[in-house]
Formats: sequence, structure tokens, C-alpha cells
Amino acid sequence: MVYEVPSVALAARILKLLSRYKYRDCTLTEIAERLSVSKTTCLRVLRTLEREDFVRFNPETKRYSLGPYLIPLGNRAAELNQRIASAMAELRVVAEKTALTSVLVQRLRDDRLIYIASAEPPDVRVRITVSVGQQFPITGGAFGKCFLAYDEESAWRRWTAGGLKAFTPNTIVDPERFEESLREVRRKGYAVTHAELTSGISAVAVPIFNRAGQVELVMACLAVTSQLNEEREQCAISQLRASAARLSEWSGYPISMERKDGELDP
Amino acid sequence: MVYEVPSVALAARILKLLSRYKYRDCTLTEIAERLSVSKTTCLRVLRTLEREDFVRFNPETKRYSLGPYLIPLGNRAAELNQRIASAMAELRVVAEKTALTSVLVQRLRDDRLIYIASAEPPDVRVRITVSVGQQFPITGGAFGKCFLAYDEESAWRRWTAGGLKAFTPNTIVDPERFEESLREVRRKGYAVTHAELTSGISAVAVPIFNRAGQVELVMACLAVTSQLNEEREQCAISQLRASAARLSEWSGYPISMERKDGELDP
Repeated sequence: MVYEVPSVALAARILKLLSRYKYRDCTLTEIAERLSVSKTTCLRVLRTLEREDFVRFNPETKRYSLGPYLIPLGNRAAELNQRIASAMAELRVVAEKTALTSVLVQRLRDDRLIYIASAEPPDVRVRITVSVGQQFPITGGAFGKCFLAYDEESAWRRWTAGGLKAFTPNTIVDPERFEESLREVRRKGYAVTHAELTSGISAVAVPIFNRAGQVELVMACLAVTSQLNEEREQCAISQLRASAARLSEWSGYPISMERKDGELDP
Repeated sequence: MVYEVPSVALAARILKLLSRYKYRDCTLTEIAERLSVSKTTCLRVLRTLEREDFVRFNPETKRYSLGPYLIPLGNRAAELNQRIASAMAELRVVAEKTALTSVLVQRLRDDRLIYIASAEPPDVRVRITVSVGQQFPITGGAFGKCFLAYDEESAWRRWTAGGLKAFTPNTIVDPERFEESLREVRRKGYAVTHAELTSGISAVAVPIFNRAGQVELVMACLAVTSQLNEEREQCAISQLRASAARLSEWSGYPISMERKDGELDP
């Protein structure tokens, strides 16, 4: 039995489309064409979303954009999820102490990743800015490795079987090397990648566990590869691990055992 | 022709339900009962929302809560709406300068109001905390008056014809006095109310105009009535008006003309 309600799925796709910078302000025709649905179907869903204040229609320009109700709804989603609220508070500490842009990454159901929060360091001239809401694939970067490393090894085949996509010349595309890199992440308790997903950008990432020992969130620092020396990398690793340990511990995960395995700090 | 898509409307109602603190974590049965729909219908919509990461299902507890995708979506809605983003920045300035909790209020389509942002003053022992996402009626308080005052006077009948609801002993329920209070708001350019909507709480509110001269947002300071002396009230009025003038001017509204009408500051 198929449980999908097509009009609800379309409503979600419309909201996701309008959340992209390029499509933030669209006419009915543009939305319908982009999502390959009829204008009539699309209009009915848009009108319903407008009535619920999930989208806003500008009668002057005849364009639709994200509606005001989404703002409190998003705040509530963050607030009610105590783990996310705590992680967002830790994120600011990490950004300040490492002087690196720090991000919180969540895994979506279809195994893509999404930035759900970011914190930029104060008083830094050159900084990396990421767009909250941006999605990216689970393979290829430090964030994804932190999620995948703690999946069952048998689940790894899902990613490696069809071949791994190269995002940059540094992406690991060899299945064996990829699986080895996941084992290394599990051993150390963190992932460091240099330009595997985005050219010139390095990431240091750590998993945050829930009570059941699953990776619930990943917290990471981003740096321009050429600016990330050994000292700054170690600083990021230790700050992130301290924050992740606090957050995992709060959720009831016996982190102290896990940390001993991966302990690298003196 | 009816444009409402029932399943999309139900999806929106589910999200709004789960955004309420009391219902933040619900079983299927609780949601279906609360919204008076069949469990089958409700389950299909929930599954679709879950697949889109708009709700999250906890298989251990069998409960649904707001999903992770709403967090970036809400951020985007605020970010892409330049006016809201600017107003949120001004809000922090107002809270700091007045030492009062400051809020940003938006009008929803059905003419209820909703808090879309709040800023609390730093270093204040007793403070008022509002819940972003909370809704309240457009009649009865300073926020609503700032919206209604700039509607056509003929539209006022919509509120006064059926009688005005008393929220506190201070609520203005007499239609003529209510309309007079709206004219006063328009004349002065701001609204001050004492315990008209909530007992013991006063509000000072100002409208923020869009280019077409419509009230797009209302910014307000909240205070415990007994603590709001003349001096603090004047401080709130002048800070709010300065912020609102900047914001309205940025959006292209010829605020300088409007301010002359209502100028009360020396």
C-alpha cells in the first residue's frame, strides 16, 4: 500500500523549491514548469499553502515566496528538539574558540545531508559562509563519513556498489579506500577531509550520538585548506570532540568509553 | 470554485499542532483525534510529511514531532524576506536600548497575529518572555491597533459590528471608543496599551510600512504595567519610532511625511 499523498508531497516540493535562493520569488508558471506539474494542480496547492501562511503571494508581481508562518515553525522545530537547541549553543562556542566557521549537519531521510545551523567566528577577516538549508550528498565529505562510519558495514555497500561519485580530484572513489576511511573515522572518533567535497575547503567533523548510540547530528569546522595548519586542525578536533562529548553525554550515550578508543589528545 | 486541497490543509494543520508545546510529541491517535480526522487519512499525510523530513517519527515511542527540514526552511523564510531580516536586526538594538523585551509581529491571512521574533534585553533580572509562533487576535492590543489603524475605516466595521471581545477588564469593547483609539494610533504613529490584551502587561507598538504604504510588520516593546513609568515609555516610543522609520524608509515608504503628522518628540 502506497502511503504517499501526492498533493502533500507537492506542497513540500514547492516549499523546498522556494527555499532555494534562485527560486525564492516565482510565478505560478515557473513553479509548475520547474516541478513538472500542471498549473491547475500547482495553483490549488499554492492557494492552500497561502491560506495557511506557508507561502505568500504578491498580487503586484504575481509571484510566490516562502510565507511568514514558516519562521515561527522553524524556530519551534529547533526549540522543541532539545538536542538541536543545545547543539546550536555549543556551535557558537566552537566557532569562537576555533575561529572557524562551524556548522551543524543533519541527515535527511533520503540520506542527503543538510546544514541546519551555522556559526561564524567573530573578528575574523576572511570567513567561510554556508547557507543553512543547503543540501549535499552523504558521500564525499567529512560530515557524511561521520554518519556512515557508524552504520552497519553491510550498509556501506549501498554507497560503494554503484561506484562513488567524484566531486573533486581529492574525492575517494575507490570503494575499498572509502570503506577504510570510514573505519578510520570510527577508530578515531572524528573525520578530517581536505577538498574531498569542495575544492580548497577542508572540514573537521565529529558525530553527536543519541541514547541508542546512533549518530543524530554532525558538528564540523570548515576552513580554507591552505589556511588550516596542524595547530589549527588539532584545536578544531579537540574543541569539537569536547562539545560532542558534552552533547552525547547529555543525551545519555556512554561517551567516555567511546572516547578512550579514539583518544588522540595527550 | 474551491481551491482548497484538503490533504495539504491537513498537513499544515498537523505542523501547526505539533508546533504547540503541549502537542510537540504526539501519537497518531492523538493527532487524529485532536484534528477530528480519520486515522487512515492522518497516517497517509504524516507518512508523506515524514518522507519530506517535515515531521519526524520516533519508532521507539511511536510519536511524531516537528522535523528537521523545518529549521532551515524557517531560516530561509526569514533570510529571503529582507524586510524581516532587517527588522530582526533592529529588534535586538531596541531591546538593548530600552531594556525591554521586544517583539516583531506579523499579520496572518485570517487576521490573527503571530510573534515571528523576539529579543530580550541583556542583563535584566525580571524579563518578559514570549513564545515565537504564538498567535493572538488582532483586536484588543497595541500590535493589532497598529495594523488596523491603517486599514480603510470601512474595514473596521468587520471587527466592531459583531461586538468586541473583552480579554481583560481594560479591553476596549465599545465600537466607537475602539474606532477612536485607531484614529489616535494613526494620528500619533504608535500605539500604547495597558493590560488590554493581557492582564498586567503593557505594550508600545509601531507600524513598519512597505513601499505601498501598508503595514507589513509591527514592532513592539513589552513591559510589566507597574514597571513602565513615563520615562521608560517615552524611551520605548522614541527607540521604536526610530527603528521603524529606518525600516520603512529602506523599503521605500516616504516616512518623513508620515512622521510630521504624528511627530510628538521635541
